[in-house]
Amino acid sequence: MKRIYFDYASTTPLDKRVKKEMDKCVFGNTMSLHSFGQEAKRVLEASREKVAGLINAKPNEIIFTSSATESNNLALKGLAFKKKKGSIVISAIEHPSILESAKWLSSQGFVIKKAKVDKYGKLDISDIEKLIEEDTFLVSIIHASNEVGTIQDIEKIRNICKKAYVHIDASQSFGKIPIDVKKLGVDLLTASSHKMYGPKGVALLYIREGLAIEPLLHGGGQEQGLRSSTINLPAIAGFAKACQIAKEEMQEESARLRKLRDRLAKGVLRIKGSYLNGHPKDRLANNAHFRFDFIEGESLVVQLDLAGIACSTGSACSSIKLEPSHVLLALGLKPEQAHGSLRVSLGKETTEKDIDYFLLVLPKIINQLRLISPFKWNTQKK
Amino acid sequence: MKRIYFDYASTTPLDKRVKKEMDKCVFGNTMSLHSFGQEAKRVLEASREKVAGLINAKPNEIIFTSSATESNNLALKGLAFKKKKGSIVISAIEHPSILESAKWLSSQGFVIKKAKVDKYGKLDISDIEKLIEEDTFLVSIIHASNEVGTIQDIEKIRNICKKAYVHIDASQSFGKIPIDVKKLGVDLLTASSHKMYGPKGVALLYIREGLAIEPLLHGGGQEQGLRSSTINLPAIAGFAKACQIAKEEMQEESARLRKLRDRLAKGVLRIKGSYLNGHPKDRLANNAHFRFDFIEGESLVVQLDLAGIACSTGSACSSIKLEPSHVLLALGLKPEQAHGSLRVSLGKETTEKDIDYFLLVLPKIINQLRLISPFKWNTQKK
Repeated sequence: MKRIYFDYASTTPLDKRVKKEMDKCVFGNTMSLHSFGQEAKRVLEASREKVAGLINAKPNEIIFTSSATESNNLALKGLAFKKKKGSIVISAIEHPSILESAKWLSSQGFVIKKAKVDKYGKLDISDIEKLIEEDTFLVSIIHASNEVGTIQDIEKIRNICKKAYVHIDASQSFGKIPIDVKKLGVDLLTASSHKMYGPKGVALLYIREGLAIEPLLHGGGQEQGLRSSTINLPAIAGFAKACQIAKEEMQEESARLRKLRDRLAKGVLRIKGSYLNGHPKDRLANNAHFRFDFIEGESLVVQLDLAGIACSTGSACSSIKLEPSHVLLALGLKPEQAHGSLRVSLGKETTEKDIDYFLLVLPKIINQLRLISPFKWNTQKK
Repeated sequence: MKRIYFDYASTTPLDKRVKKEMDKCVFGNTMSLHSFGQEAKRVLEASREKVAGLINAKPNEIIFTSSATESNNLALKGLAFKKKKGSIVISAIEHPSILESAKWLSSQGFVIKKAKVDKYGKLDISDIEKLIEEDTFLVSIIHASNEVGTIQDIEKIRNICKKAYVHIDASQSFGKIPIDVKKLGVDLLTASSHKMYGPKGVALLYIREGLAIEPLLHGGGQEQGLRSSTINLPAIAGFAKACQIAKEEMQEESARLRKLRDRLAKGVLRIKGSYLNGHPKDRLANNAHFRFDFIEGESLVVQLDLAGIACSTGSACSSIKLEPSHVLLALGLKPEQAHGSLRVSLGKETTEKDIDYFLLVLPKIINQLRLISPFKWNTQKK
């Protein structure tokens, strides 16, 4: 059976060119004085330059970390440790790494406030404005939702943040849409490698030049003392290659995916009692997110999987938990609507054929599930 | 020119068999419900079992992290956050990731005490005993020194630690000497992958069943909620393979390296004004560490490098700094003696020929350096 992967928002396979770059990477320790070390150091700095280039940052503004989760933790806690007290504004639809870091900071005496979103997942800018007070030192916003794909207007948000620093979690948008940190005016930015065909185990935190934060990992003083650890060079070199590829191919690939996604959405929405979650336009080109009346999302994922199609309900990070997605609830969906949702995320290997197969299989599964549904779809709707 | 790598204590090249394991690893996200995710989850748990097997731990006692630095930070801070106050005893020859974590904890109100070592780098057990007080909740000791290779008597140390938990940093010893966490009686243990022919970007923290600590990275709740982040599966699978290989080959490889190292040490110590640093017997089989009168270690490293030989002075983590090694100072060496030191660490690719070449080249370089030394070796010694 052919297996179709529709969960690129969760993680992506390695691009073959990235793999090649990693395979040829040297193994030395960047901190060593000898030539093995110096070679490694050169690869590190060349990689940093490539990565910085994708978001118009300076190389010295890029700190390599092990994951977007670590970058998000470092952004929030690193700045909070520096500030010692005050409040942070986040949105109601953040990734768990922001939510849980914020929760932990609130146990340490910091005040955390959550800004509302509208039914499309767009941030309510006037709500952010209300939440920002004199002691607010940070506003942290997810750039594009990891669930529904809605993209926020960062420039507008930046404009009303006054003295507060702005961090964006660009884990889903980095490499998929153009990002210019100077133009957006953000102070901190998280980006991940394994969401854009780079290896797992590497990510970055952009820190605007001049902004001081505290490290989370203390030790040998790598990464300007902000992130100690032996440099994970093959992963960083791979990440850099993925950034270079994204820079060259983003526009074309994005257009291709948008076309496929729109074809998919059009087909899915022909199913009775199906709805699109998230913004109709301001969303990632590879993201489609639906909900279906009288459908339990996990059963749907399992049935699709049996038919060779990998999708998710909620994000991977929350798919193990049985609670309804906090993102979908924030959009105003009822728990049963949230539970009846499906995320379909496309990527480089997605073809028109895959979409057609999906559109062939999905209505049948929905139908079967509704037949056995305790909610008696048929009688209620006829 | 042939290049000889004598810096295995800093980092090791990937074992080809590890590389193969990583190449065939699946890419799915372990948190996904679909088959790509479930496959990934199976690889993760099989890997955990292999890694646990090397130190006689249960699989659920292994938390995967991104580096030994992270594991060390997690051990110290994770337990400190749980305990909220009290004191920690470390040794004077810890890795910077322990020293700096401890320093940071002292800025947070914890009391840090450092136990002395003798001239061979062996911990003064009576000194530890004196330092442990009623409020001491943790004793953290480097199992084998990353600089001089001296191995500590953990069982003896464990016996005098009373109620305090014991953490060992086994970054250098893991995979090189047999470790049985139950027999040693330790509560926490740090081990690294890239020091034993596994990939960079992955390490572990062993946490004895029943011992509760706080996480450093908050988020999706991976690794029993103790280390959130998308699982870096290819690296973990590689680490597991490296553990399996170490289990099978450790004994033989260790005997081979010991023989080579002894041949090297014998040859080096024929040079006038040369001395062995560290313990003559209780040291890692692959570690040799010397000091030379009237020699500046960095010049020596550079000259050796020009001759195609990669060694280090101090550890990689401190080789960029110009301060004398805190480890060597703790052994009682004067700053100029510490500066005149050289670490030669052997590994899988080291051959007898490499040793002979080193023994041919080193005396000439020492001689040349002494000729231009401001300390006028020749006149003083004749």
